Amino acid sequence: MKRLKATIAYDGSGFSGYQIQLKTRTVQLELLRVLKELHKGQQVEVVASGRTDSGVHATGQVIHFDTPFTIPKDSWMRALNVRLPQDIRVHDIEEAAPDFHARYHADGKIYRYKWTRSKIISPFTRHHLVHVPQAIDVSRMQQAAQALLGTHDFSSFCAANTNVVDKVRTIWRIDFEEHGEELHMVIEGSGFLYNMVRIIAGTLLEVGLNRREPEELAEIVAARDRDAAGKTAAAHGLYLEKVHYSR
Amino acid sequence: MKRLKATIAYDGSGFSGYQIQLKTRTVQLELLRVLKELHKGQQVEVVASGRTDSGVHATGQVIHFDTPFTIPKDSWMRALNVRLPQDIRVHDIEEAAPDFHARYHADGKIYRYKWTRSKIISPFTRHHLVHVPQAIDVSRMQQAAQALLGTHDFSSFCAANTNVVDKVRTIWRIDFEEHGEELHMVIEGSGFLYNMVRIIAGTLLEVGLNRREPEELAEIVAARDRDAAGKTAAAHGLYLEKVHYSR
Repeated sequence: MKRLKATIAYDGSGFSGYQIQLKTRTVQLELLRVLKELHKGQQVEVVASGRTDSGVHATGQVIHFDTPFTIPKDSWMRALNVRLPQDIRVHDIEEAAPDFHARYHADGKIYRYKWTRSKIISPFTRHHLVHVPQAIDVSRMQQAAQALLGTHDFSSFCAANTNVVDKVRTIWRIDFEEHGEELHMVIEGSGFLYNMVRIIAGTLLEVGLNRREPEELAEIVAARDRDAAGKTAAAHGLYLEKVHYSR
Repeated sequence: MKRLKATIAYDGSGFSGYQIQLKTRTVQLELLRVLKELHKGQQVEVVASGRTDSGVHATGQVIHFDTPFTIPKDSWMRALNVRLPQDIRVHDIEEAAPDFHARYHADGKIYRYKWTRSKIISPFTRHHLVHVPQAIDVSRMQQAAQALLGTHDFSSFCAANTNVVDKVRTIWRIDFEEHGEELHMVIEGSGFLYNMVRIIAGTLLEVGLNRREPEELAEIVAARDRDAAGKTAAAHGLYLEKVHYSR
């Protein structure tokens, strides 16, 4: 058996998230279906770096699976992409160490959150950009973000309905990029709690819209209380962009 | 009564074209529904510059309708955009002459056809760009396009199932634009026959892929036979970008 590591992209708008569920279309369901077909009816387990919620996109999700086949990379890419629906694409595939694990070995991730500041939302990007027609003060968002950098207990930025006990995570950077009407928040860290990126995006946006002060962020972190932070930003602005593996 | 002229955009991927039909979702159906709602149940007629096919997009379709209301432009925009589905947006609205006619007074149109040359199609643009992974020689397409400029009988570039008798049209320009991996054909003319832009795009692409010679285009025009031209390019690459009115 060989262990393969694949990098995939998907448009979250047609899926009820990554993880398999009863009666709904998910990314994992499509991957399992195609791998089973390629393995002549044999079920193949697929492990991702983490789940993504309904509507959330990925440009660099990483998965692993085991296969007895020895097939060149280009043939694997073609075999998968021909069978997968067009809203999932395999961008890379390579043989990994036999003990490589897409989830347990992930030691960092980059997420990107995208807003559009167009006066009128474009019909073409309505599932891929979150529309904010009001004026945004990006420098206030940058200032507020400083309080989140480093290692903290991020309980205030974690959806209340979670079983995770250790809520300490490290954020290495939060950058804002302006691409014409689009405003992106790029966040890189050791790992993220449930809804953490979306709660950070929602809270920093409130600062950008002058509804909160940049100085409040340190207090919000210290509160360790979800109610202290702002609204969870919409799912369809979020992209899982990269998963880091040092091993 | 006032006659209003509105410029609208729509993502064609969720519609069975512009024109109202039984039992399918069309752009006109949504416009009529919203205008009826705004006019307290009174049916309001809507006239577009022309229909667009299933899957075809618009960034600058023009419509007109009559209303007894005197409402400022911004209020009209808001009233319409709040009620319309997000895959249709009104970009502009203004009072027109009482005899203005979106269809009969249109004396030119710009269409844009978009291909992407990415190795792997993006899940995010699969309904908005036509994927051509093979190498395209754009200079051959430019050369071939010259034979289409000017006034010709475009029977060879008209879907066979049409009742139009006069197939003489004038093309003012055909430009190719490269935006990173995207290749756009921008075509401007006095008017276009049914499927004309898509048949031109499909035929010129065959030249770009070395499946036809640039010199063939003059012969194809002269043949006045649909079978002489190439394949009709896919609907989802086509955008109605602008409608010209000199009156």
